[in-house]
Amino acid sequence: MDTCVFCEIVAGRAPAYRVMEDEHAVAFLDRAPAAAGHTLIVPRNHARDVWELPEDACAEVARLVHRVSALLRVALAPDGLSVTHATGEAAGQDVFHFHAHVVPRWRGDGVRLMWETRRASSQELQEVLERVTAAR
Amino acid sequence: MDTCVFCEIVAGRAPAYRVMEDEHAVAFLDRAPAAAGHTLIVPRNHARDVWELPEDACAEVARLVHRVSALLRVALAPDGLSVTHATGEAAGQDVFHFHAHVVPRWRGDGVRLMWETRRASSQELQEVLERVTAAR
Repeated sequence: MDTCVFCEIVAGRAPAYRVMEDEHAVAFLDRAPAAAGHTLIVPRNHARDVWELPEDACAEVARLVHRVSALLRVALAPDGLSVTHATGEAAGQDVFHFHAHVVPRWRGDGVRLMWETRRASSQELQEVLERVTAAR
Repeated sequence: MDTCVFCEIVAGRAPAYRVMEDEHAVAFLDRAPAAAGHTLIVPRNHARDVWELPEDACAEVARLVHRVSALLRVALAPDGLSVTHATGEAAGQDVFHFHAHVVPRWRGDGVRLMWETRRASSQELQEVLERVTAAR
């Protein structure tokens, strides 16, 4: 198996700008930030993406996301925050160890992170709902 | 206080295409989806954004995000998923009851959700790290 760069950071074998950590997860600065203070939160145990991550680990990552979000507010006084994670190349995932991004946001910062949407019809929504609920 | 549309959905007073729910959170289809199956997960108790949401509630939302992610995989067989939440208008938040988006993704779907980044210098990263760790 190839070496996982985030496993190396978690283990302390690769350098990182560590912001915060606990027994379940580690937070460090993204080296290619969308904005100042852009932080990644990774579970200590390797999991490729949200589909492979155990539910408990997902909850623990969310706890560290929450604490990092509060810390960045105090430290950098942003107007807002974007939090996101990608599963799969189709979603833009590029490192295949699950990671949540916390990106401080300022009004007019030019960070483009919202999608274009269109209003769906009731019929479209109903059809999707049926497919989804049939899979429960 | 103005009526909160997501509180109305949680309470069952406003209609929604409910996908899944538990004692802490409710998942329902976004009416203006970025892609088919785009689902919102909201905590039952009102909180404006991640800064106002209690940490435990953030973890519980993440658990339902995890279960919805698995369900959408089975139901719709996407290539990936984008999960995101916004805090503040600066981040594009438009309904001020915390909500996580789970968006099924397919290769070439044209949903633009990643930001532009540039490599930061070590000095920039070090300066941000000092500001952040000073606030811990």
